[in-house]
Parts: sequence; structure tokens; C-alpha cells
Amino acid sequence: MLIVGERINTSRKVKGEPIIEKAVCARDADFVIKLAKDQVEAGATYIDLNCGTLREDEPESLEWLTKTVQAAVDAPLTFDSPNPAAIERALAVYDHTKGQPMINSITAETDRYKNILPLVQKYQTKVIALSMDDTGIQADAEKRLTVARDLVKRLTDDQVPLDAIYVDPLTFPIGTGTEVGVAMLEIISRIMTEYPGVHTIAGISNVSHGMPARKFLNEAMTLLSMDRGMDAAIIDPMDRYLMALIAAAEALLGRDEFSMNYITLSRAGKFDGL
Amino acid sequence: MLIVGERINTSRKVKGEPIIEKAVCARDADFVIKLAKDQVEAGATYIDLNCGTLREDEPESLEWLTKTVQAAVDAPLTFDSPNPAAIERALAVYDHTKGQPMINSITAETDRYKNILPLVQKYQTKVIALSMDDTGIQADAEKRLTVARDLVKRLTDDQVPLDAIYVDPLTFPIGTGTEVGVAMLEIISRIMTEYPGVHTIAGISNVSHGMPARKFLNEAMTLLSMDRGMDAAIIDPMDRYLMALIAAAEALLGRDEFSMNYITLSRAGKFDGL
Repeated sequence: MLIVGERINTSRKVKGEPIIEKAVCARDADFVIKLAKDQVEAGATYIDLNCGTLREDEPESLEWLTKTVQAAVDAPLTFDSPNPAAIERALAVYDHTKGQPMINSITAETDRYKNILPLVQKYQTKVIALSMDDTGIQADAEKRLTVARDLVKRLTDDQVPLDAIYVDPLTFPIGTGTEVGVAMLEIISRIMTEYPGVHTIAGISNVSHGMPARKFLNEAMTLLSMDRGMDAAIIDPMDRYLMALIAAAEALLGRDEFSMNYITLSRAGKFDGL
Repeated sequence: MLIVGERINTSRKVKGEPIIEKAVCARDADFVIKLAKDQVEAGATYIDLNCGTLREDEPESLEWLTKTVQAAVDAPLTFDSPNPAAIERALAVYDHTKGQPMINSITAETDRYKNILPLVQKYQTKVIALSMDDTGIQADAEKRLTVARDLVKRLTDDQVPLDAIYVDPLTFPIGTGTEVGVAMLEIISRIMTEYPGVHTIAGISNVSHGMPARKFLNEAMTLLSMDRGMDAAIIDPMDRYLMALIAAAEALLGRDEFSMNYITLSRAGKFDGL
């Protein structure tokens, strides 16, 4: 399971305070490094960097974040930005010996596709493919599936290998309709079945937006999605219970030979106190 | 989701003590009633009665348990016994106004089938159909699926409606092989797809037998099985975290209109402190 740790995001607030944004603006390397190291220690295999709130300062800040985090941890990075120039600046200083970088994200929107594809090609990145196009985000699952298919076809036509593509079906809040979860699971199933070798990923926590007791919905949706073949997720790896359930699901889905990873995590105390 | 509460079982020990067996032998009605009420309050929709350890005293004890529990709670009962005579004695005093009773279980074994089928027919019960026959329990999933199919066919040929049949694919411990979970999920998928209207059920906790950190495996397997269509489970409903995850999965799988049950449970404090 590819786990993208989502905690380094300047839009994230802790008790109402934008502490990440403040730390990035102040170039507080120790703060950022701790965020990265804690996530790797917790099981993140990729560290997402998002400083989109900084607007004109974003490119320089993303470059600084990239250098700072890479100097401290070995996990590869995910660059999450609306600004292709910021992503390129980060990729230009990226240390490829730490593993293949990932762009979060490309879409079928004309401008976005045109601006991101060259970066994917030039820097040989993995890329998250969001199923949206110039008409916006389709609530209808069948339409979203069609957009996702078209995007996979276009990317592979443009020589991006299937193995580098992480289709994101887009997570709708369950509060918006009874069938929202079923639709998302169906998109994951179909994409994984129709394109052997491709990956699927989701920012699961949006499923519980506006609902009470969000964590159970987030945990359940992660496991149900894994059952459909989802092999990557953008989550908070510091959520130890969720990480324990993911490890359990990996064992039960035959992705953990002799459950050795599960047993090792247990012996290492990762499940203690839960 | 049909939740069979498994706590009234004389083989169950608490801190090494067979407290259920002692209570049943002493005809301690208050103790048994509390066990039943607590499970219903926690969300059990069926209460399983199992006093198989009592051997020659089992029939009389099962009759006493049936009368005692039915006098106190409205949930229907599941009778779990190796002894058809004990099951019949319980069914003979069963109050059908509390809902359809369930027999746990029938198999394709010659004697078991011959002895249990008349009870299913006479008392119009639901029945758990274990996928095992005279050759024993098959570790091979394809063989177990074949046994399950044959059993469903035989039961329906014998006029048992599909809606009364709960196929149990048999839960193997994940410690016995990497593919054990995948095999069980595949059996559930196939049965639910091939026989629309039938049900599937499992005693999930066996999946974690012999493993560390059992609860995450039990929780994950329950959710993965629900994703394949499993609509009943034999569990400990006092495991509040598991019950919360099941409620979340029901919402996400489109089985909870507008997530109203989930929201209601949350408002009722069922998720508090978890």
C-alpha cells in the first residue's frame, strides 16, 4: 500500500491555528522535518507537500520544503499544487535517488493537462489522475468513470506508463447521497479491472465531510476501497488505528506474505494502546 | 445487517473462568438475562444460545435458556448445538411472535442434514448452512464453494426458501496461509452473485486465531466481507468499535438511507468515547 502522508499542508489548521503555514513562512526547518519524520515513522511511504495557500510565495516555498524534507528523510515526495510553475521548481531540485516523485495531480481539463503532462514526462514522475475535465466534477458515477477512462487512455497515449498512473475517483461526502459510497467503490473496481497495472488512490477523508463520528466512516471507506483494489491512499498516517486496520486488510487481501508485515508491526509496538 | 450476538455460550471463559456455564448450570436467570439485554442494547438483532458443553444436560438447559431469554428480550434466537434433540426441544417452546428462529447450523454431512432439515421445515426456521460435507472441511476454496453451492441447491430443492438460508463459507485463520482471506471473500462474492436473495454469514473472529492484535483483523475482515455482500455476522456486539465500523460500512455500501441509522446511533451516544 502506498501511503501518502498529508500533514504538510499549509491549509491545515490545528485548533484553528494555521501552524503549518506559519512554520513554512518562517522557514522553520525543524518543525517541517519533524512533521515529515513522524509521518515516515508512522508508515507513510510518500510525503505530500502542499503550500498552495502561500500564492505568489508558493514556488519558492515549495522548493524550500522539498530541499528541507529531502535533507532529512528518504521517503519520496508528492507535490500538491494548483500551480505548475511551483511543481516544476520543486521537481528541478528534487533528489531522484530518494525515489520517484509524484505529481498531485493531473486532470482532463485542457490547461491542466497541457501544463502538467510535460512535467510528468520530463521528470519521469508518478501522477495522480483526477477524474474531472473542463465540465468540472461530475456527480454521476458513470460520467466520472468515463472521464477517468479517457484520462488513462490519453496519458498512456502520451507514453506515461500505466504503473505511474494513480487514478483518483474523487471522494464525495456520504452526506450528499446514499449511493455516493457505492459509486466510488464501483469506479475503483472498474478502473482496476479494465486497466491491469494501473493504480487507484483517494483522499478518503472527504467521504465523512459534514458527518458526525467521521473516523469510522474514513476507516470503513478505506477498507472497502482496498477490497476493490485501491492500492494507495492520501491519509494522515498519524492516525494509528487507521494504519492498523490498513495493515490488517493488507494481510487479509493476500498482499502481506504470511502476514509477516502485520506481525512485525505488532511486535514493534505499532498497535500498542489502541 | 443481521447481527448474531455470540456471548451466551457455555464454552466462553472470562479470565479463565467458565462463568456462562456456571450460570446456566445454576439456572441463574438474572445473569443470562443481563447477557441477552446487553447484547440487544448493543445492537444484536439475534441472540445465539450455545450450551453444548453441558452434554447430557444440554437439551434441558437449552430449553431453559430459550424460555428465560424470551421472557426478557424481544430479539429472535439462534440455536447453536451439535445435538438436534436439544435444538428441537428449544424450538418446541420457542415463542414465534418474537421473530423467526435460526438454526446454527446445517451442513451437507449425511446425518446432520437428515436430522436438521425436518426441524427447519417443521418450525419454519432460518438456517446457517456451513460449507462442509462428509469429507470434512475443505481447505481448498473452490471445493468449499462447490459444497456450499450443493447445499444451497439441496435446501431449496427441499423447499427451504433462499431468504431463509445463511451460507457460512467457514472462516480459516489467516495464520494458516496468505490466501485464506482472499479465498473466503471470493466464496462470499460468488454465493451472493449466483443466488440472488440468499444470505451469507460468518463467525469472523476465527480469522485472527493465533495472531497478535486480533481485533484489527476481525474488524477488517468484517468490512471486507460486507463489501462482498455478506449481510449477517456472528460477533460480539459488545465490541463497540466493531459495531461502529459496521454501521459506517452500512452507510457507505448504500444500505442505510441518507445515513440516518449512522447519524441516529451517533446522536444516541453509541460512538462516544471510542
